[in-house]
Amino acid sequence: MTRKKIYDVILAHEEGRGEAFLKRIEGKKPLFVCVIGNTETAKIPGLSAAGRYPELTEFTPAADVELLLLGSCKCIKGVPVTPEGIPTPALITKSALRLADIPTLVVSGGVKIKPLAPYLELGGRAGGDIRTGKAVEDAEEILLRAKIAGENLSKVAEYLVVGESIPGGTTTALGVLSAMGIDAKGKVSSSMPSNPHHLKMKVVEEGLRAAKIEFGALASNPLKAVSCVGDPMMTAFAGLVLGAARRVPVLMAGGTQLGAVLAVVKAFDRSVLDNVAVGTTRWIIEDKSADLKGIIAQIANIPILAADLDFSCSRFDGLRAYERGFVKEGVGAGGAAIAAVAKSKGAITTAVLLEGVERNYELLVA
Amino acid sequence: MTRKKIYDVILAHEEGRGEAFLKRIEGKKPLFVCVIGNTETAKIPGLSAAGRYPELTEFTPAADVELLLLGSCKCIKGVPVTPEGIPTPALITKSALRLADIPTLVVSGGVKIKPLAPYLELGGRAGGDIRTGKAVEDAEEILLRAKIAGENLSKVAEYLVVGESIPGGTTTALGVLSAMGIDAKGKVSSSMPSNPHHLKMKVVEEGLRAAKIEFGALASNPLKAVSCVGDPMMTAFAGLVLGAARRVPVLMAGGTQLGAVLAVVKAFDRSVLDNVAVGTTRWIIEDKSADLKGIIAQIANIPILAADLDFSCSRFDGLRAYERGFVKEGVGAGGAAIAAVAKSKGAITTAVLLEGVERNYELLVA
Repeated sequence: MTRKKIYDVILAHEEGRGEAFLKRIEGKKPLFVCVIGNTETAKIPGLSAAGRYPELTEFTPAADVELLLLGSCKCIKGVPVTPEGIPTPALITKSALRLADIPTLVVSGGVKIKPLAPYLELGGRAGGDIRTGKAVEDAEEILLRAKIAGENLSKVAEYLVVGESIPGGTTTALGVLSAMGIDAKGKVSSSMPSNPHHLKMKVVEEGLRAAKIEFGALASNPLKAVSCVGDPMMTAFAGLVLGAARRVPVLMAGGTQLGAVLAVVKAFDRSVLDNVAVGTTRWIIEDKSADLKGIIAQIANIPILAADLDFSCSRFDGLRAYERGFVKEGVGAGGAAIAAVAKSKGAITTAVLLEGVERNYELLVA
Repeated sequence: MTRKKIYDVILAHEEGRGEAFLKRIEGKKPLFVCVIGNTETAKIPGLSAAGRYPELTEFTPAADVELLLLGSCKCIKGVPVTPEGIPTPALITKSALRLADIPTLVVSGGVKIKPLAPYLELGGRAGGDIRTGKAVEDAEEILLRAKIAGENLSKVAEYLVVGESIPGGTTTALGVLSAMGIDAKGKVSSSMPSNPHHLKMKVVEEGLRAAKIEFGALASNPLKAVSCVGDPMMTAFAGLVLGAARRVPVLMAGGTQLGAVLAVVKAFDRSVLDNVAVGTTRWIIEDKSADLKGIIAQIANIPILAADLDFSCSRFDGLRAYERGFVKEGVGAGGAAIAAVAKSKGAITTAVLLEGVERNYELLVA
């Protein structure tokens, strides 16, 4: 498959707009923002890589951002790994941010385990199991506070790259997308090679039933959709975009979870969508068990950019596993890689990035 | 008294360096950071304007930064006032930041009342009464986290203006300065026209005795000085300066409390001092009951700049009271005013600022 690339960034969807977005951010100085959250939904057995060691996985968002800010995790030993031992994509994010000297701000939408590092507090709490139909408290207030933060950050950064870390997030995304009438069945991604679509849909259906919501009933009530079947990352992320994208470009960094965030953003303020792109990894756009484009295209005509990361020749099996469908994306890895490429005007290639990731892997995992 | 001024900024100390600092920041885009904290010390009767309504005053830092971020206070009605009804200097800060379109980030060093607005959490707790000799927990960790935040912010902002809000802060400043061997007796400022120097010294002596510290014994142990007789704003503020001033100028915005912060900064890393200036108000440098220059000059050759604010012709008695020695400074008012003047290359004068303050006063106080 031949695809149009600029430097090592694939124009994966809405090519013209993607190219224009890349031109706007080329050589510019971004701020990388990582939004973290926890949801009890992650503990449902079989749902995510999280399911096997649920208590340990509660530490993942905090550990991920400690890695970004401190260079190593503090609340756990080593780094977050899947049950098979495949390491967190925060290794990619960290390498990209360090190579391109990009600053980082962590924002908590609501976590159970707090990072042992500075983070922006919005007053949110960790989310509930969406099967109860009561997933997120104070969604409106969190969105408002995040919007204020986004407005202020947009006055100081040339553009924002916003990523996220929340285990169980593709299921809550499926929940919110379904409540808002976007067909995401069989389309959300997974950090495991075999994607448990059936179980995810069952969980979402249970949540919608508990909250007495029909598919699409909350198309124009995003806060209720998040409150019932979403997670606390979503309103924080959406608020940041709503606050910042009026003034500067915002690269939404992640996989299919961003569909839910984008739907919330659109429901509040369509006018910011021109300033927004999705940044992800090649592994996501090549994922045959999911359909990021199919989700995004239902919401808005915004471009999808993908970092052309390729770990097939890595020295480490734990990294080569990314080529076999493990992990794929997270902690804004793809968007951070794109920002590193764009800031350096292509001088930082994905091959250079892999070297950085391998150094981190050697240091922190091997 | 004739004084050298550039625009409406008085070169109050170290004129040559002050002029050079102003030139470096002229036309540049700053980030305003407000560090908040609480200390039980503020509740000691007669010590500060805080003493009369101690429970209410615990809300002051949170309310001050809500005013900055939201345009009005949320955790209290109206705005913080002294017992005489004189309003918080956050009115000045807010007007300056709005007029010059300067973004704001709030950082908590340790508070009892959390702002109902986004703030950077460093994991610190509110401080104890320094008479116990146990004032601040985890000072080292807070400094470290603040330093990381400062490093990251310095990659995105052209320079930082850092202010603070902590009732009782001049007494804790006297404590740390004394522990570190800087003669500040009778030199720290007060938000009241009559400065209770004798009581402040008595409180500090009690704290030093409880912690078994002689005057000057902790000259090279700033963390212990803060831990015993300081407050949780200090290490957060110092950490931000240490992290940011390696890369960008930092205008330390406030009054005599900054002496303690500066002493901590110097003890950790003298090399950043070339990138630092103190920004304050005319009311502080003209305060006959205190001596900011006398404190700063003992620590380092850094310039003092003062916004030439003059409220004597204000329509409101609550603002004219600033000319009679009430409040004087706080919430980075002087530094924010200087930044507004510098960013606008003098187009924003202190007369323009007063109009803005009066509009805010009318809206929020009158």
